[in-house]
Amino acid sequence: MSYPGGLLRLFLEPALSEGRQVTPSEAQDHYLRHVMRAKEGDAVRLFNGRDGEWRARIEAMTRRAICLRVEDRLRPQRQEPDLWLLCAPIKRTGIDFIVEKAAELGASRIKPVFTARTIVTRVNHQRLLAHAIEAAEQSERLTVPVIDPAVTLSAALQQWDPTRRLIFCDEGGGAPEIGAALRAASPQPAAILSGPEGGFTPAERELLHGKTYVLPVTLGPRILRADTAALAALALWQSICGDWYEPLR
Amino acid sequence: MSYPGGLLRLFLEPALSEGRQVTPSEAQDHYLRHVMRAKEGDAVRLFNGRDGEWRARIEAMTRRAICLRVEDRLRPQRQEPDLWLLCAPIKRTGIDFIVEKAAELGASRIKPVFTARTIVTRVNHQRLLAHAIEAAEQSERLTVPVIDPAVTLSAALQQWDPTRRLIFCDEGGGAPEIGAALRAASPQPAAILSGPEGGFTPAERELLHGKTYVLPVTLGPRILRADTAALAALALWQSICGDWYEPLR
Repeated sequence: MSYPGGLLRLFLEPALSEGRQVTPSEAQDHYLRHVMRAKEGDAVRLFNGRDGEWRARIEAMTRRAICLRVEDRLRPQRQEPDLWLLCAPIKRTGIDFIVEKAAELGASRIKPVFTARTIVTRVNHQRLLAHAIEAAEQSERLTVPVIDPAVTLSAALQQWDPTRRLIFCDEGGGAPEIGAALRAASPQPAAILSGPEGGFTPAERELLHGKTYVLPVTLGPRILRADTAALAALALWQSICGDWYEPLR
Repeated sequence: MSYPGGLLRLFLEPALSEGRQVTPSEAQDHYLRHVMRAKEGDAVRLFNGRDGEWRARIEAMTRRAICLRVEDRLRPQRQEPDLWLLCAPIKRTGIDFIVEKAAELGASRIKPVFTARTIVTRVNHQRLLAHAIEAAEQSERLTVPVIDPAVTLSAALQQWDPTRRLIFCDEGGGAPEIGAALRAASPQPAAILSGPEGGFTPAERELLHGKTYVLPVTLGPRILRADTAALAALALWQSICGDWYEPLR
């Protein structure tokens, strides 16, 4: 992976400002020493999701710890568009993969949901968060997507704020094409809902179609796997409603 | 995986017409017997990329062979839109993954290309074809994408038919956003070019920017991995220029 800025990027929790000293996490310490073979004096880029992106330098490197000194700010903080992904965990490529791709595609929040046909029964929250952080570091984001604990689809709908549009990838037929539907829709915070391998049950589809905030959409005449559908929908949303188009505005 | 038609789908080479007998391949024979535990009398759906989709029934099942009798045509033949994918093989998720997703997203032809920074040195053509067939079976396509032998990027460009637009996913900056670029472009056969992990070299970018048929595009402000970029570009093209929108026309 080549970094456009030419420097390794790390996500850290502490506040970042000129002159501060910060210490990388244990995993980052290992990564810097043993994967990147970093030395004293090497520069890295740091972000914490709040203070923008900063250049820092390895000031000291003892057997015990690495000390990073924050130098100057390279980019001001910016948020990702307000786009959530609700996704049923799937077997094969798995939710780790979806989280990674959703982070690259700018999702601000990822909420694993258990549906009637979801086969996977447990979600490792810490592992998902690690994937989200790594993808954020590599994708030049200045935020890390929030990873929610997994809940059932019905619990997620019970707590739903109806001002957030729920874009329902509905393979059941009859829904408008996603691009056309998004271009016709008013600007609004949004979430994309993608199902498990076996799709949604008729009862789930009925429940979803009954909600005023649900926008059912189709993704073309071919049947997409659950992970492909989630990624395609995220890309379409960013291009039509999100921040892809911004450079030209 | 649930099948909308309710029946298992298989891709076979032989001609399909009412009353014909056909024999599944060795791998399909194994799949029918040992994975699906099919029995005499069971129905399956068949397609060969030429004759549409047919219902067939297992007429006889001996230790040696399965005999399928073709019954009636369920769908007439249809082609996918004329969209190629040129993709550098990548390590991690790999080209198998890209081929599977590209088949779901309706690519008609997939051409692996070796670029200057491509790390992978060999591509297993037979394995890619097997992945393409499996994805075509599962995605309800009536065709299987053509898988070309891997060539160098420069060889691919030397043989290029300039009436085919080459959509170049250019992370180098300055290109228009893909959605805006595709909406502004005239309808034309197209190909998407996605690079390896390390991106394209300055020399490759210069070469590509010098071609009249190349349309450089960007995919938003975040850096996408090579596989994510390919999938996002395929989805955008299908929604704007391809057959996603057809149901509403």
